[in-house]
Amino acid sequence: MTGTTKLKIVNDPVYGFITIPSELVFKLIEHPFFQRLRRISQMGLSYLVYPGAHHTRFHHALGAMFLMQRAVQVLKSKGVEISKDEEQDLYIAILLHDIGHGPFSHAMENSIVEGIGHEELSLMFMNALNKEFEGKLSGAIAIFKNECPRKFMHQLVSGQLDMDRLDYLRRDSFYTGVAEGNVSSQRLIAMLDVHNDALVVEEKGIYSVEKFIVARRFMYWQVYLHKTSLVAEQLLLGLLKRAKYLSLKGEILPASEALSYFLSKKITKEDFSSEALQIFSKLDDTDILAAIKAWASHKDVVLSMISMMLLHRNLLKIKIKYEPFSEEKINEKRIQVINKHNLSEEEASYFVFTGEISNQAYRMDKENIYLLKKNGKVVDVAKASDQLNIKALSKTVVKHYLCYLKID
Amino acid sequence: MTGTTKLKIVNDPVYGFITIPSELVFKLIEHPFFQRLRRISQMGLSYLVYPGAHHTRFHHALGAMFLMQRAVQVLKSKGVEISKDEEQDLYIAILLHDIGHGPFSHAMENSIVEGIGHEELSLMFMNALNKEFEGKLSGAIAIFKNECPRKFMHQLVSGQLDMDRLDYLRRDSFYTGVAEGNVSSQRLIAMLDVHNDALVVEEKGIYSVEKFIVARRFMYWQVYLHKTSLVAEQLLLGLLKRAKYLSLKGEILPASEALSYFLSKKITKEDFSSEALQIFSKLDDTDILAAIKAWASHKDVVLSMISMMLLHRNLLKIKIKYEPFSEEKINEKRIQVINKHNLSEEEASYFVFTGEISNQAYRMDKENIYLLKKNGKVVDVAKASDQLNIKALSKTVVKHYLCYLKID
Amino acid sequence: MTGTTKLKIVNDPVYGFITIPSELVFKLIEHPFFQRLRRISQMGLSYLVYPGAHHTRFHHALGAMFLMQRAVQVLKSKGVEISKDEEQDLYIAILLHDIGHGPFSHAMENSIVEGIGHEELSLMFMNALNKEFEGKLSGAIAIFKNECPRKFMHQLVSGQLDMDRLDYLRRDSFYTGVAEGNVSSQRLIAMLDVHNDALVVEEKGIYSVEKFIVARRFMYWQVYLHKTSLVAEQLLLGLLKRAKYLSLKGEILPASEALSYFLSKKITKEDFSSEALQIFSKLDDTDILAAIKAWASHKDVVLSMISMMLLHRNLLKIKIKYEPFSEEKINEKRIQVINKHNLSEEEASYFVFTGEISNQAYRMDKENIYLLKKNGKVVDVAKASDQLNIKALSKTVVKHYLCYLKID
Amino acid sequence: MTGTTKLKIVNDPVYGFITIPSELVFKLIEHPFFQRLRRISQMGLSYLVYPGAHHTRFHHALGAMFLMQRAVQVLKSKGVEISKDEEQDLYIAILLHDIGHGPFSHAMENSIVEGIGHEELSLMFMNALNKEFEGKLSGAIAIFKNECPRKFMHQLVSGQLDMDRLDYLRRDSFYTGVAEGNVSSQRLIAMLDVHNDALVVEEKGIYSVEKFIVARRFMYWQVYLHKTSLVAEQLLLGLLKRAKYLSLKGEILPASEALSYFLSKKITKEDFSSEALQIFSKLDDTDILAAIKAWASHKDVVLSMISMMLLHRNLLKIKIKYEPFSEEKINEKRIQVINKHNLSEEEASYFVFTGEISNQAYRMDKENIYLLKKNGKVVDVAKASDQLNIKALSKTVVKHYLCYLKID
Repeated sequence: MTGTTKLKIVNDPVYGFITIPSELVFKLIEHPFFQRLRRISQMGLSYLVYPGAHHTRFHHALGAMFLMQRAVQVLKSKGVEISKDEEQDLYIAILLHDIGHGPFSHAMENSIVEGIGHEELSLMFMNALNKEFEGKLSGAIAIFKNECPRKFMHQLVSGQLDMDRLDYLRRDSFYTGVAEGNVSSQRLIAMLDVHNDALVVEEKGIYSVEKFIVARRFMYWQVYLHKTSLVAEQLLLGLLKRAKYLSLKGEILPASEALSYFLSKKITKEDFSSEALQIFSKLDDTDILAAIKAWASHKDVVLSMISMMLLHRNLLKIKIKYEPFSEEKINEKRIQVINKHNLSEEEASYFVFTGEISNQAYRMDKENIYLLKKNGKVVDVAKASDQLNIKALSKTVVKHYLCYLKID
Repeated sequence: MTGTTKLKIVNDPVYGFITIPSELVFKLIEHPFFQRLRRISQMGLSYLVYPGAHHTRFHHALGAMFLMQRAVQVLKSKGVEISKDEEQDLYIAILLHDIGHGPFSHAMENSIVEGIGHEELSLMFMNALNKEFEGKLSGAIAIFKNECPRKFMHQLVSGQLDMDRLDYLRRDSFYTGVAEGNVSSQRLIAMLDVHNDALVVEEKGIYSVEKFIVARRFMYWQVYLHKTSLVAEQLLLGLLKRAKYLSLKGEILPASEALSYFLSKKITKEDFSSEALQIFSKLDDTDILAAIKAWASHKDVVLSMISMMLLHRNLLKIKIKYEPFSEEKINEKRIQVINKHNLSEEEASYFVFTGEISNQAYRMDKENIYLLKKNGKVVDVAKASDQLNIKALSKTVVKHYLCYLKID
Repeated sequence: MTGTTKLKIVNDPVYGFITIPSELVFKLIEHPFFQRLRRISQMGLSYLVYPGAHHTRFHHALGAMFLMQRAVQVLKSKGVEISKDEEQDLYIAILLHDIGHGPFSHAMENSIVEGIGHEELSLMFMNALNKEFEGKLSGAIAIFKNECPRKFMHQLVSGQLDMDRLDYLRRDSFYTGVAEGNVSSQRLIAMLDVHNDALVVEEKGIYSVEKFIVARRFMYWQVYLHKTSLVAEQLLLGLLKRAKYLSLKGEILPASEALSYFLSKKITKEDFSSEALQIFSKLDDTDILAAIKAWASHKDVVLSMISMMLLHRNLLKIKIKYEPFSEEKINEKRIQVINKHNLSEEEASYFVFTGEISNQAYRMDKENIYLLKKNGKVVDVAKASDQLNIKALSKTVVKHYLCYLKID
Repeated sequence: MTGTTKLKIVNDPVYGFITIPSELVFKLIEHPFFQRLRRISQMGLSYLVYPGAHHTRFHHALGAMFLMQRAVQVLKSKGVEISKDEEQDLYIAILLHDIGHGPFSHAMENSIVEGIGHEELSLMFMNALNKEFEGKLSGAIAIFKNECPRKFMHQLVSGQLDMDRLDYLRRDSFYTGVAEGNVSSQRLIAMLDVHNDALVVEEKGIYSVEKFIVARRFMYWQVYLHKTSLVAEQLLLGLLKRAKYLSLKGEILPASEALSYFLSKKITKEDFSSEALQIFSKLDDTDILAAIKAWASHKDVVLSMISMMLLHRNLLKIKIKYEPFSEEKINEKRIQVINKHNLSEEEASYFVFTGEISNQAYRMDKENIYLLKKNGKVVDVAKASDQLNIKALSKTVVKHYLCYLKID
């Protein structure tokens, strides 16, 4: 962050400059809870495929706030009334929308802190900050929780055309170098409007929305669900599960204090105390990476093998197809691994497993995107006459994968 | 063009540098027939909407040749055999594929030289050049005419995924500033391959192809068929028709020698002599623009009114919808114009008219794009299992427009 | 120009979107005087070297206005008071600063309308528009003429760091594809401030200013004074001089009405009537290009030879060095041409001539760029302690050229 | 890394696609020594100022290799003979030139492994790999050590215009968003040539070289020596020194195995065994970051205070000027800290210290950049007649800084 004048400015390769809009926002950014996001990669292990993809949730949060500033500017210029306070609420809501993400978030959510999503953790952080900042975040929290009467505010933070998506698609496209995901965020924002307190897109924006949906779909198949990232993420998930399993059995694994805390006990949503939140706020990618490095020489063969694989990018093989894999196929692979590496069946399941991935480019059941027609009517973008293809894109596509250790 | 070394290099804001691959290609570029393209705008009157869109057919032809160089490199690296001579043939074929375009081409084709398309004129120019260069263009001409046994060569020059489209979409997107049309040409090319002498795309390229088709569709609706460009083009068409009508009646209009030649006689494909070709090669945007400026003060009210409109960007109003406009509506507008400007019915038809535009993002009947699956099978991209939407995109969408002079 | 909402928006590949800030500005843009700039190339004949360089003065004027909007925003955020009216005055002043440019401007100024610079013509246009718009341009004119008490306003329009330069360097770099001229206009603007009503740059901006000066120097040597552009411009200058010479002798040359008017009489600054201005407003690149095409077959050998050269990009040879060329060398070349083409000495002087070009990257005598130091002192950027090199760059570098017709 | 065909391809946001040129190069990239570079940030702690700057040495090494491929292509096209083997040697030499970098490299070199530079470590790694790959790296090592008779090869790897610099300036500019450092690497490479086996730049490239030198200077002052990065790096250096001091006194600090090894013993160049190299190859940014997180709650006040500062980006104040700071000034600040935080004088020296930074944009004494003039003569770029400013830029500029803990 540079700038000695009151107006703090941050350099951003994607948008040029990002201006911090207020003193309060600046203080929130300086808070250790938010600074932690500097150490959490936005795209998890995707850098194993796209070496440029090391950008962080810190950067994404700032980017989403930048787009929110643009959106507020556009809506006001179209006559939508947004007060100074509401403006700041919007900036804070989008800035903190992802603050609850753990390291390599999705792997985390499904292993270490079972049953607690990052949205719930974000809300816990916001509440803690609200206490510290004497209630100044109440408006932002209402927007985040969709308890604000002006529905479009929540839609700007969370919806199928929110500032979160508009930033991450563009940013991930930028850092991976996958030009196809390059969404023209600023053009889409220029076409936003508000009708009956709900967010709409001007009719002429229909093709931009369509391109946005296709770009998103593209990024899912080509990047987020890239087969190599998929293997890496599944391996990490397995690693954390194994570590928790060993820890719960009483084994002491080398790990940071914070990571040890979460490995050594079952924590449900109900007993996620404010102590747990404090310790969670100390967790970031570093804890996981340091553990992987330490575990690479651990005596448990599952722990050490997976750690080595992630460390040296020497991953499992993967096959993807539209139909599920047969039990025979899976068993055949398992037996090979059991024999070759002298593993138990349970251990082998970490190295041969199957699963499914799915991609729904546009949901028609929830958080729909609406067009405002020139005649004043509002229609779902998928139902606009010329858009058979958006309807086609709302079909969920499912694929199945099989990961296995190659035996030569 | 810069560069004193043998390897001539041209600066291109889109690709960086374009290298002229051979002496013969360099000589063709230096030929007056090709230099003429420097004075023909690639996007006609679109600069009235997108002020950056002043790039020329000269530049586009060089860009398409650059992409052909990349395509040849990729295919060779995949084991496709392409001889030195074939390589040069491909470069020449793509370089000259548009050499027959007249000024503001489509307006031209439908008024001045009725019934002769620019492809036919391109071929005439190629034949003339072939004579001058002693047969060295025969291979290129065979490719252009699809008479070359290796089908993929023609497909690289003319098809639904040819170097022409890959360049113009990217270039037009660049110069208009409409980011949504930004096709990742080089990624698409990296996924090309040849199977049984036909062009195919590797299976993993399916989402790139899809994005390409959507981008193209986007550019058609948003740019090429933009309502303001549409009005401008229709006005220009009307202007040239009027000028030809007056000329054939014996009126002498101020115009360049070349333009006068084509205004003063009916020329059909059959009697398009080599003299006509020579004179055609003298025509470019300048002739039309100079005429518009001169005709702005002509006594014929249709001629002068349209000229002033184009000159000062003070165009007709336009309405677009999915259903045709009723006769009543059209008549009502015509009567208003007739009364206000004291015109005959025939004259009024230049200021109130209707028509239709259509857009088919992907054709399934011709020049299909094929995927090469990993199992060695080849399928139409629209039939790949996950691509309901490409099928949806192959439906032709038709819209109707009504242009009229606003009467206050 | 797109947009049906009140806020008109123009697509710009360089900055994304340009917003028209007011109704009055919009009307000025729609005025035929301003629309004329669509037909005047920003970089003259440079497209003969850089095929992408077809952008216009229309586009540049909009771009400079966009940067002015950014500058106003930055200065206001730093506490500089600028009223709504002053804001609009600044936008109009920068929008119209170049409105007096003729076709291929510099060639024009030195042949057709001798002794009248484009700034004087711009002022005449502004005065005419001010009458038409009932005095609403008076503030803008005061700024343009440096008669406004707040000096920084004029400096934003005309100075060594004005919005004009910040736009044209960036835009010309963009369209030529010469990345080295890519000035970070928005960063420079972010560092502007006002001190005692004069424009200053924050101290930390010193390296940005330095890079700006070097980029400008680079663009001069590499682009604006590129040897091929130089030959082309000198040829065009010769062509217009010859045409005027013939016209004054009574010869009737094919030319548009407006061009004929200026060719057929000597016009000095004093007798530049409002009628002359009206006719001047009809002149643009088209008139010159159409004339070149017509003159290519004229019986005057000078006129036809130069026209053919420009048309087919078959230019004179050029040599450049630091010392003047000797009379012997020049004579030798002239005699060759006289003998070969059977020309008079006077005629030959159009095909063999010499001249000089110079480049001063930073002027220390006028319109200096000042740094505002943290201690509140203001210093010339060239005198800041670490900047020996800017001082070095303030030296004028002169080179000499010799153009000649190659005789094989 | 994507691509199932033989030609492996990596996505790079800077250059588009990077192709792995051979099987051996591919194996080297896959080696754990090289994969380690994925976990070493290219710009150390600069991301505390430029949040986008998280790119790695892994990515930079690939980028430099890409540029080397371009350079080889250009030189061959100009007739320079380079054999297939030499080509691969060049790729390997540039790929591995930085393989010896430790975590946050410069801090490392001056604390943990005193007196051993990263070049020496790179060489040790290369020798180890050469053994593993049975001598196939000998040519690359000769180039790296400048023992290859063809001098230009070493110059391409290490010199004032080498592929290392051409990549890191462009890449760092890209990821920080500081456009001023954007070197047109490909244009510079296009102007390279070889004369008497030494690297030269074509004469017309003089302004490009100048812009390159100014851009580099800019990046040093504005980015690499940015005051906030400077404080952060000095703090990290202090932290590691403190940790080593405590460890050598016998204290056991929480740290990874590899880090503990280097903290607990003095290692000089002479006794840097192959065991030490193996352990060094396990060190990366993770070890340091994990230690910082653990040390934040250590009882040693110096260790914990610095750790907290780095973790929460709550750094020391810094002042920079051209003259050294007086002893009085420094003492005054130290006494404030001693009193406020109850520290010993020795402890206080970690929170109040001074130093100097320097920047020499172009060195005239070593590894000069030479121009090849059209007359065949070779001159130092700083001595070319028009370049007083490059000479000015060869002066070393020194600044002094004072870092101190702010006492309110």
